[in-house]
Amino acid sequence: MTTDTSFRYVALADSMESGILKGHFRAGEKLPSLRSIHRQMGLSISTVYQAYIELEKRGHIESREKSGFFVKARKDHGLGTLSRSNVRTSPQKITVNHLAESILAALQDPAILQLGAALPDRELMPLKQLSRLMKSLPSLILGSMIATYEPCQGNPALRQAVAGRSLGHGLSMTAEDVVTTGGCMEAVGLCLRTVTRPGDTVLVESPAFHGFLQLMEDLNLMVLEMPCDPDRGIHAKALETILDSHQVNACLFTASFQNPLGCLTSDQDKKAIVELLSRRGIPLIEDDIYGDLYFGTRRPATFKHFDSQGMVLLCSSVSKTLAPGFRVGWTIPGKFKEKLLRLKLNTCLSSPAVNQAVTALFLKSGAYDRHLRRLRSQLRNQVSAMATAVSNHFPADTKMSHPKGGLFLWIQLGPGTDSMAVYHKAFQAGISVLPGVICSSTDRYANCIRLNCGIAWSPRVEEGIRTLGRIVREESGR
Amino acid sequence: MTTDTSFRYVALADSMESGILKGHFRAGEKLPSLRSIHRQMGLSISTVYQAYIELEKRGHIESREKSGFFVKARKDHGLGTLSRSNVRTSPQKITVNHLAESILAALQDPAILQLGAALPDRELMPLKQLSRLMKSLPSLILGSMIATYEPCQGNPALRQAVAGRSLGHGLSMTAEDVVTTGGCMEAVGLCLRTVTRPGDTVLVESPAFHGFLQLMEDLNLMVLEMPCDPDRGIHAKALETILDSHQVNACLFTASFQNPLGCLTSDQDKKAIVELLSRRGIPLIEDDIYGDLYFGTRRPATFKHFDSQGMVLLCSSVSKTLAPGFRVGWTIPGKFKEKLLRLKLNTCLSSPAVNQAVTALFLKSGAYDRHLRRLRSQLRNQVSAMATAVSNHFPADTKMSHPKGGLFLWIQLGPGTDSMAVYHKAFQAGISVLPGVICSSTDRYANCIRLNCGIAWSPRVEEGIRTLGRIVREESGR
Repeated sequence: MTTDTSFRYVALADSMESGILKGHFRAGEKLPSLRSIHRQMGLSISTVYQAYIELEKRGHIESREKSGFFVKARKDHGLGTLSRSNVRTSPQKITVNHLAESILAALQDPAILQLGAALPDRELMPLKQLSRLMKSLPSLILGSMIATYEPCQGNPALRQAVAGRSLGHGLSMTAEDVVTTGGCMEAVGLCLRTVTRPGDTVLVESPAFHGFLQLMEDLNLMVLEMPCDPDRGIHAKALETILDSHQVNACLFTASFQNPLGCLTSDQDKKAIVELLSRRGIPLIEDDIYGDLYFGTRRPATFKHFDSQGMVLLCSSVSKTLAPGFRVGWTIPGKFKEKLLRLKLNTCLSSPAVNQAVTALFLKSGAYDRHLRRLRSQLRNQVSAMATAVSNHFPADTKMSHPKGGLFLWIQLGPGTDSMAVYHKAFQAGISVLPGVICSSTDRYANCIRLNCGIAWSPRVEEGIRTLGRIVREESGR
Repeated sequence: MTTDTSFRYVALADSMESGILKGHFRAGEKLPSLRSIHRQMGLSISTVYQAYIELEKRGHIESREKSGFFVKARKDHGLGTLSRSNVRTSPQKITVNHLAESILAALQDPAILQLGAALPDRELMPLKQLSRLMKSLPSLILGSMIATYEPCQGNPALRQAVAGRSLGHGLSMTAEDVVTTGGCMEAVGLCLRTVTRPGDTVLVESPAFHGFLQLMEDLNLMVLEMPCDPDRGIHAKALETILDSHQVNACLFTASFQNPLGCLTSDQDKKAIVELLSRRGIPLIEDDIYGDLYFGTRRPATFKHFDSQGMVLLCSSVSKTLAPGFRVGWTIPGKFKEKLLRLKLNTCLSSPAVNQAVTALFLKSGAYDRHLRRLRSQLRNQVSAMATAVSNHFPADTKMSHPKGGLFLWIQLGPGTDSMAVYHKAFQAGISVLPGVICSSTDRYANCIRLNCGIAWSPRVEEGIRTLGRIVREESGR
């Protein structure tokens, strides 16, 4: 070890790197605290800290807020990185399945490890605050909300809160631009019905959120799947190529933390995509439900941010961040508002008022931002811990996504491994996962699974991943 | 006056009948109390009571609970009775309109007299009890309902409560047969999507609930309108004739207190209709939202009651009886449950849990039946008072319905009177009504209006009807 003080931290980093590469520290393992190295090696805390930062820069370790430093899953030594898939891009009728319903029903069973559904752990939700807010509504106001139908466009306070928050990510919307809905699914369904007719073709990312595929089948729409870059989402150039050779009536894209890939489309591509689609008169439905769950330093811009023509219909909800059971969502449908309102009126008349009012109170209180900061940090840690566990327990030919935000890890098992078989065996073992085969109308993802990282990390989850790894090995014969 | 005591009451009845027919008592006027006649004429209270009962039998007066006896609107002398309309029965594309949305939005304005929307007065709703129930939910349970998605089929307690109540009107359903929805509109929309495809033809009653017509237009369905008997609803024979000459893919009927006519299809016809449709393999969507609001002595049977093949999809909600703002409804979709559940899953994932749970508590508590008894009596009185006011203030060539239950009076103005003009002028005068022109895809009801009798009777309502009468006279030039 050199005595030149300025290089002490490099020497420490070198020596620890060597230890990590030789496997003395396992992926996912917590490194010794700054203080303990300081005491053991006679180095200043500042030097140890610098060494850890250096190791983080080199990609070997990562810091988790309030928890310390952890050894990262090794991209080069351990599991592979996903590459963009080569999807058949011809319109397809989607096959039916009831699997999503089983996964939803399993949510009621605390004995099941919930890696299948898409939602954060109840421990991560501000349930007490929300319950208290609901109970604190004066009876007179509660009564008024129970006694009558709300206007079809939705609760004014919630619309105002949503418009106000949109300022935070670069949009200047007013309450008049917002229509509330029963969750993001209802919003996307209404938007699809607003901008398409039966028989039309909708372009989506591949792999896709299975719920959207099923929804489009129900609406008698054709689906065209576009390969999605596991890191950078949709490339404007690739989109243009597809549009040149296919009749597309609408697009349904997720700019931020796509389900299931967790990828993030660049601002440059977002801008180019919106301009391209506007030029061609193709409406873009944007699913922004994961937008607030970024692992980076700032809230990414939406497609809507670049929309000067009103051609983007942004959809979102509080289901992934606050209160899935409220069924509170919204859309900012641009120039399509009137038609969408008409459809909403005839679909459900109006939305329940109380849940919207409570959501509005929470969103406006400042508590939401504090909650989101905590939630993001927890989700980032959980995704990281889950990735580490997968790299420890799954076969070596497994590949996985490196999500930039959101709730999921997308895992590509070895060729030929049947994700439906994994799903069934896992369910028997008390673990719910999402088989990738339902994320496309092709069988392209038959060897993939999606894991929900919303569940708080615990020995039970680690054990679940170990069990999954065993099942995958059995299935793949590796 | 005869001295034979057994005929004293007849003599009194005769003399009062003569007074009513000569116009000494006006329609809607309250008759002297039993006690005051007893004192003035030296007759026993029992004799006066018998005379009033006799007058009621003869159709001249009616008793209103806790209010006394009132002179009825005279069918033969005053306004006419509606006859079955002669509707063009060829499939029609429905014209679009935003009028329903304006009426809904007007609900937020206490300055507007709400005769346009379809809901009971807030004063008639058990708002305090519902608010208290909601606030009394333990935070832990509330938190559980907020934290996760409910199963797609809906809240188990509510499904159980709905199934349990169905026993009361002759159905033996279990919670497994019920799917909860966001109100009756969502239920009917899901049912329509379950049993039809775009381009299919649906047979409905005429006049129809405008929301259903618009919904079907949105779903790219063709609508065939079938004349409805203003008293007896749908005749099985007439239905058979239509089915013999038209391709019909589904029916959407209201057996009890159709919106807007308030008519009641006989049990005999209900049975024959269900059998006829089942034989021909045509699903029947039943709107039973007004079924609990009967003015007679018992809850009428539903179509579902006669359904042995699972071909009836019953839809209902608590929006007209308890809590419009909850958006809590349900369907009992018979053999179509699986397909409907799939559509619900992809439309909205699941329904909000808290409103359903509160509704379930109220339905099971016995408080609902007490509330319904009171509500029915109040609505009966309000319909009667409204009918009387209309017969006093509208032109002599006005005809109106004699609803057997529900919320509405359907009023046919003189030939050529433009209901849209009446609607606009009334709205300027602070009164919301529903113009009949939107209750058909033809212009058959351009001279009709629907009045909501859910509003508690008061001098303000009487004054509103007087104003409406004036507007109608101006419009009709009579």
